[in-house]
Amino acid sequence: MRDAYHEELAALTEALVEMTRLVGSAISRASTALLDADLALAESVIHADDAVDALRDDIDRRAMDLLARQQPVASDLRTIVTTLKMSADLERMGDLARHVARAARRRFPDPAVPAPLRATIVEMGQVAERLVAKAGGVIASHDVAAALAIERDDDAMDRLHRELFAALLDVSEPYGIEAAIDVTLVSRYYERFADHAVAVSRRVVFLVTGQQPQELTEPV
Amino acid sequence: MRDAYHEELAALTEALVEMTRLVGSAISRASTALLDADLALAESVIHADDAVDALRDDIDRRAMDLLARQQPVASDLRTIVTTLKMSADLERMGDLARHVARAARRRFPDPAVPAPLRATIVEMGQVAERLVAKAGGVIASHDVAAALAIERDDDAMDRLHRELFAALLDVSEPYGIEAAIDVTLVSRYYERFADHAVAVSRRVVFLVTGQQPQELTEPV
Repeated sequence: MRDAYHEELAALTEALVEMTRLVGSAISRASTALLDADLALAESVIHADDAVDALRDDIDRRAMDLLARQQPVASDLRTIVTTLKMSADLERMGDLARHVARAARRRFPDPAVPAPLRATIVEMGQVAERLVAKAGGVIASHDVAAALAIERDDDAMDRLHRELFAALLDVSEPYGIEAAIDVTLVSRYYERFADHAVAVSRRVVFLVTGQQPQELTEPV
Repeated sequence: MRDAYHEELAALTEALVEMTRLVGSAISRASTALLDADLALAESVIHADDAVDALRDDIDRRAMDLLARQQPVASDLRTIVTTLKMSADLERMGDLARHVARAARRRFPDPAVPAPLRATIVEMGQVAERLVAKAGGVIASHDVAAALAIERDDDAMDRLHRELFAALLDVSEPYGIEAAIDVTLVSRYYERFADHAVAVSRRVVFLVTGQQPQELTEPV
């Protein structure tokens, strides 16, 4: 049976998993709002981000409180320090989902994404959802192999990011500058969302092993 | 006279200030590389980022070591927890400077920034340098008023970011899609660099007061 202290540590981990659920829902709904030019849905994503920020504040407060009261060492200390880093990653993922929703709102009632690029954006949204779901699983399971495997999904995101730029530059399909700016920014938001999911999973590797995985190679 | 523990805390703060110097130098040199299409300088910025990452790792290790050994509470605990958050912000600022340098390298020997937009990019580089220098000053001084004032400089960055998009869309000056993508990304890198400088200064407010400054309103 666990003592109250370890119950609190476990609750902190559960709160991080809840953050992954919130930002997973946010990126999923933001993608739909973007592709369907759905203003109400975009607004809903934008407002829902306050809950992510509030949960981050709550997690950080509880983590600091545990540090002050419990004098954790070794694995418990890594759990709490890693929690403080992961809460920042997850909060940022919420911001990025909100940015996607804002791009939808900015062009409403027009779609922000030209029709021929929609399929790539759909795929980016799916990869983003998959990555954050896997990151949530890794936070809960502490599965190092699964954590390291997340980088393969991130490679898929980087490939989509490059594909989108190539499609924008394809002279047979001329897009306006405004569409180019929108698509460039939106693509960047998805790609950063994915990077943070990878960062979260790498922090789990550190939490479990005490070792930093080798430097994250960054795209763009 | 300070004991060894407080010497170590002070050294941690000094290391964060050193990080601001490194990323300040990086964004300054990256801006020059971008504007002058200077490949050697761009490469130098790209490689120098490893030193920023190494310093972040060193700071985090020392911060965790102090947490494990010293059982800090109150202001000392906030100093260490804030250090772990600031090291992540500053490491990211280094990445963003490297991204600017990579944009210069990608288009070499062509300039990545069309001539009519150069002046705005010059100004973004200057604002970025000023922000990180001020953030370094605030980390050293713990001056809450100065920390809160940094947001005014960030407003200047947001204005430049919007100006650049408006200039790209100005139909009397048609740019290619490639230039639009480059300028959009580079502008975003500067703007995020500035956001992180603001985040650092807000963390100093929390460190000193124990209170979070009101939610940061985010551009784009």
